[in-house]
Amino acid sequence: MSKSKSTQPPYLLDRIHGPADLHALDDEQLQQVAQETRELIIDTIGEIGGHFGANLGTCELAVALHSLMDSPRDKILWDVGHQAYPHKILTGRRERLATIRQYGGLAPFCSIAESEHDIMGAGHASTSIGYAVGLKEAMRRGIGPDGRVVAVIGDGALTGGVAYEALHQAGGLETPIVIVLNDNGMSISPNVGALSHYFNRFRLNPRLFHAREDVEERLTRLPLGLGRRIERLGPEIKSAIKAYWAPGLLFEELGIAYMGVVDGHDVADLRWALRRAFEAERPVVVHIHTVKGRGFAAAEEGGLEGMEKWHAAKPGSIVDRRPADEPKLIPVTESDSPGSIAPEKLERPAPKPAPPAYTAVFAEAMVAEARRDPRVIGITAAMAGGTGLDALAAAVPEQYVDVGIAEQEAVLFASGLALQGAKPVCAIYSTFLQRAFDQIVHDVCLQGLNVVFAMDRAGLVGDDGPTHHGAFDVSYLRPLPNIVLMAPRDEAMLVTMLRTALLHDDGPIAFRYPRGTAEGVPLPEPPRPIEIGTGEVLQEGERVALLGYGWGVQAANEAATALAGHGLQPTVADARFAKPLDTGLVDRLAAEHELVVTIEENVLPGGFGAAVLEHLEDARGADRARVVRVGLPDRYVTHGKPALLRAEVGLSGDAVAERALTALGARTGA
Amino acid sequence: MSKSKSTQPPYLLDRIHGPADLHALDDEQLQQVAQETRELIIDTIGEIGGHFGANLGTCELAVALHSLMDSPRDKILWDVGHQAYPHKILTGRRERLATIRQYGGLAPFCSIAESEHDIMGAGHASTSIGYAVGLKEAMRRGIGPDGRVVAVIGDGALTGGVAYEALHQAGGLETPIVIVLNDNGMSISPNVGALSHYFNRFRLNPRLFHAREDVEERLTRLPLGLGRRIERLGPEIKSAIKAYWAPGLLFEELGIAYMGVVDGHDVADLRWALRRAFEAERPVVVHIHTVKGRGFAAAEEGGLEGMEKWHAAKPGSIVDRRPADEPKLIPVTESDSPGSIAPEKLERPAPKPAPPAYTAVFAEAMVAEARRDPRVIGITAAMAGGTGLDALAAAVPEQYVDVGIAEQEAVLFASGLALQGAKPVCAIYSTFLQRAFDQIVHDVCLQGLNVVFAMDRAGLVGDDGPTHHGAFDVSYLRPLPNIVLMAPRDEAMLVTMLRTALLHDDGPIAFRYPRGTAEGVPLPEPPRPIEIGTGEVLQEGERVALLGYGWGVQAANEAATALAGHGLQPTVADARFAKPLDTGLVDRLAAEHELVVTIEENVLPGGFGAAVLEHLEDARGADRARVVRVGLPDRYVTHGKPALLRAEVGLSGDAVAERALTALGARTGA
Repeated sequence: MSKSKSTQPPYLLDRIHGPADLHALDDEQLQQVAQETRELIIDTIGEIGGHFGANLGTCELAVALHSLMDSPRDKILWDVGHQAYPHKILTGRRERLATIRQYGGLAPFCSIAESEHDIMGAGHASTSIGYAVGLKEAMRRGIGPDGRVVAVIGDGALTGGVAYEALHQAGGLETPIVIVLNDNGMSISPNVGALSHYFNRFRLNPRLFHAREDVEERLTRLPLGLGRRIERLGPEIKSAIKAYWAPGLLFEELGIAYMGVVDGHDVADLRWALRRAFEAERPVVVHIHTVKGRGFAAAEEGGLEGMEKWHAAKPGSIVDRRPADEPKLIPVTESDSPGSIAPEKLERPAPKPAPPAYTAVFAEAMVAEARRDPRVIGITAAMAGGTGLDALAAAVPEQYVDVGIAEQEAVLFASGLALQGAKPVCAIYSTFLQRAFDQIVHDVCLQGLNVVFAMDRAGLVGDDGPTHHGAFDVSYLRPLPNIVLMAPRDEAMLVTMLRTALLHDDGPIAFRYPRGTAEGVPLPEPPRPIEIGTGEVLQEGERVALLGYGWGVQAANEAATALAGHGLQPTVADARFAKPLDTGLVDRLAAEHELVVTIEENVLPGGFGAAVLEHLEDARGADRARVVRVGLPDRYVTHGKPALLRAEVGLSGDAVAERALTALGARTGA
Repeated sequence: MSKSKSTQPPYLLDRIHGPADLHALDDEQLQQVAQETRELIIDTIGEIGGHFGANLGTCELAVALHSLMDSPRDKILWDVGHQAYPHKILTGRRERLATIRQYGGLAPFCSIAESEHDIMGAGHASTSIGYAVGLKEAMRRGIGPDGRVVAVIGDGALTGGVAYEALHQAGGLETPIVIVLNDNGMSISPNVGALSHYFNRFRLNPRLFHAREDVEERLTRLPLGLGRRIERLGPEIKSAIKAYWAPGLLFEELGIAYMGVVDGHDVADLRWALRRAFEAERPVVVHIHTVKGRGFAAAEEGGLEGMEKWHAAKPGSIVDRRPADEPKLIPVTESDSPGSIAPEKLERPAPKPAPPAYTAVFAEAMVAEARRDPRVIGITAAMAGGTGLDALAAAVPEQYVDVGIAEQEAVLFASGLALQGAKPVCAIYSTFLQRAFDQIVHDVCLQGLNVVFAMDRAGLVGDDGPTHHGAFDVSYLRPLPNIVLMAPRDEAMLVTMLRTALLHDDGPIAFRYPRGTAEGVPLPEPPRPIEIGTGEVLQEGERVALLGYGWGVQAANEAATALAGHGLQPTVADARFAKPLDTGLVDRLAAEHELVVTIEENVLPGGFGAAVLEHLEDARGADRARVVRVGLPDRYVTHGKPALLRAEVGLSGDAVAERALTALGARTGA
């Protein structure tokens, strides 16, 4: 752990109300501000929870950038934004840091609405370079005030295809932007793929900084007269040797100048490199090396494991800048990444063992299925811990593949596997699967391939907010031909649906399940498949049918309890499938009740309720119950604890019951 | 133009019934087969129309691959598939070539259902490498029979992000696949971006082939004792010089071996290179150079322009292997690319000038808008001709950007432009916009940015078939908060909606319009914006309200005519907006009619009709007209002329009228 020097003036951070206040400080003072920022993050996030490791890595970078730039006229784009806490502290949000990720508090990532210094909003990776090219190309055309544009992107995010597309465009247009490649050797899980081998080569290189000019100079000073001889060979040979010595060839080949590797924890070095990059007036990559968890011994000394473990800190996990007692820590396999910190478990008193997380149940089931059938292959896109597939990686490594932050490739790779007769399971969060939409439309559904999609984090995810809520998957998948869509109401059904999906031999099949703690029901052993397109009545009743989908069934149960308080015993049913719908069940419910209430944690337009309504109108016209659809509203929902958010959007059992009573009243009154 | 040697045996192609028949032929015979294949394509496609230039470039490659491989056990994956005609000819489909792209005939691209030799289906670019990695990794795990796997991908398709993601994965896993980089210096439009500069460097290089070993050998034979001296410097320097001489550094840095540049029109050279690549047992890129339009003088000699012009041939455009008389040619600005050949204009007799294509109207309107406002910037993803933005590029080049085959970057770039106050218009086909779905969700809609989406080719596109139909955009965009969705019923409304979109200052806005000829109505000058969320009643009537969206309004008009024949005068209305819906109009139609028939060229699940139904059920319950939704069915629709396809799916005016009459009868009977 770093120590602050006792000879320094008391506390510089008190003087920093905005980035302009950094401009007059010297390198040493700036280095101190960075360290004070780090300590503030350790103290605050250790107490309240939040993204941790990455933010400890960017303290010097945020200080260096803001000390040289005139934000917001000059624009700093933080890719993903989970490393932007130092930036938030330096841009007038220090006082509110303790509210981050909480309902009504600071956003977990950057947010345009929150600050003029948050130039772009994000939460998904690999988008900053494309934004930067657009901003700068607009400026070059005289649109808006001119300024410098910097994108800060991690080495993991660079594996996302759109980052390459953007690099390629920047190189082609020679757009003068600065791309800071923040290289800490891991994104969330340790990086995979060729690019990480590539970067590893440089990380192992003891030389800290090589701009090409330096190399050129050095070449002519080679011993034994070789310098002169090499010069006589002509410029090609010199370029060749230069090229090898300067480790940025990958970028240079794309038309982007390269500087690196710079010590990302030395403010003076950073400022020197950034100044040169700004002067270049062309696209430049500044490759910096940082340490995730810098300044927090438990993260730094734990190696890769320590860094992954401390990617995000749980509430109360740090006391006096040291890890708190063990009981306060939650094992990493139950944590989420990026940024899903699963604090629910701490909120409930635990007289008896709490139910497992859905993710943990899925993880164990995947290991069991993989052991049963060698054709089962689990695929993650840099979310081994978050999806629980790290358990598969440990147990049956040859049936596990991490493609890196590259969801498109995850789905294409699965398509290739399926063509060869494998049983690929793409375990991808609902919100991240959006990144592979065309692969699902064009490469899986159109081809009718047996790819299984396990969509974790469906519905409201909580603290990570609107970029991470799984709000759209039912709507964007249901229009696609050939696909089967399911959602389990509890962990027993999750295991059942995984089995059902793996036995399905007639095209793609997907199931969505929520983040957080499961319901505490016993698991079937062995799980038996259910018939495609069949729902299930859980309770027979009258007047009102509550028809839930996935988590919606839990809300239906709660609503049924609430309605019982009004003397009403509703029917409760689990649709289980959104596509194909159990039309027999839906028809019966609509024929035998006054009201069918559909409940889902997906937006209403085009969602599960729409499927029910579309079918009933097609099949029965007016000869049926009225359909009331309950789900997520047609707007982006903020961050905060799921219970608070559900109350806000009317997805609690009480709210559902209220909707049913109102509709019944309206009907009676009509 | 190449000439076949008169001394050759009469016609080798007659002996080729499948790829195995190539195995016994020698290099010279194989070269002849390639030439015969080329001539067959010129004769056949010149007459019936179809993809042209790219297929003339791959004749030798297809022959060389199949002569060495044991398809389908060995797998050849043709990226996009528009260059796979020679492959189709060699794999038993020669007799049916003249049916290609026609209803019931051969598919325009590769199709798993069509042949066991079509390993993957496609139509969108950049997917083959990902498939290849999946196939081979399954084989390595003992799943399915082992075999060699080759992906053939163009230099243009390599700019798509998912291709990079796949290269990155192949390099990381060291998957032994062969990637043939078919480099003809252009995708459809001339390539843009850094990668094309990169490849240009090699194309200009007179040396045809450099495997690294050759370079290594040569190094030690350098004159003046330099070879030995360089050797003494150690392996690093030698690697450096090698690296420079072998032009595949970009790939080598990703862990992929590189061979090139190989003459793609020399079967013997190709076979030699491919044999070495197969022996390598690791990922290898074989960089070949081919000429688009090879062997067809008008394409070859016309330079880039000739190649783009002959990307696809119109029916009857070639006679006796030469371009037909000028009148049979359609200017390239009205053609589509890739592969949309717009033959309608030839089908109708032309006593008076035919109406312009929707694309042409959009193109002119964009030029006018760009001239009015310097903040307007048109963006295409390698579809300058297909979207009509080539007109903008010619007229106002500084307000035009082609990002290459990189739809994700097109949308991110637009986001950056919008942040700076520009008015970006992403002109992207409906089907290709799927590739940027997460950018729309996460980077445009969530951020509320003023990005305009001009979605050409919405609905059934015809001959290009299921990969290119714009069947889903209403369904996948409507669930997203903050976005406005429009569709013009004719070209006057298209111009009006472009103006409306550019004046909209409250988030993203999109409009979809069909492929092909517009309606022949006069254009407003100047166009005036319409109010967001307002529809329009075109004809007042009774009992039945026909509510069209976009092209659906034309179907509604036809249906109204048909219903008039049954003594029924329906109301006809143009919804204009799918989001926000004109709820006042919809409510009135539902209150005053027995039946509301919605008509759209989008799939029914979650589409425009679903929007109407969702609103009516929410707002009025049973107190309303029955809703009958007409649209595309929940399956992928084949290729063929739009009129045939619309008849097949029940989207003709007569079919709509029939649906209305049936529903009225049912209602009356009830």
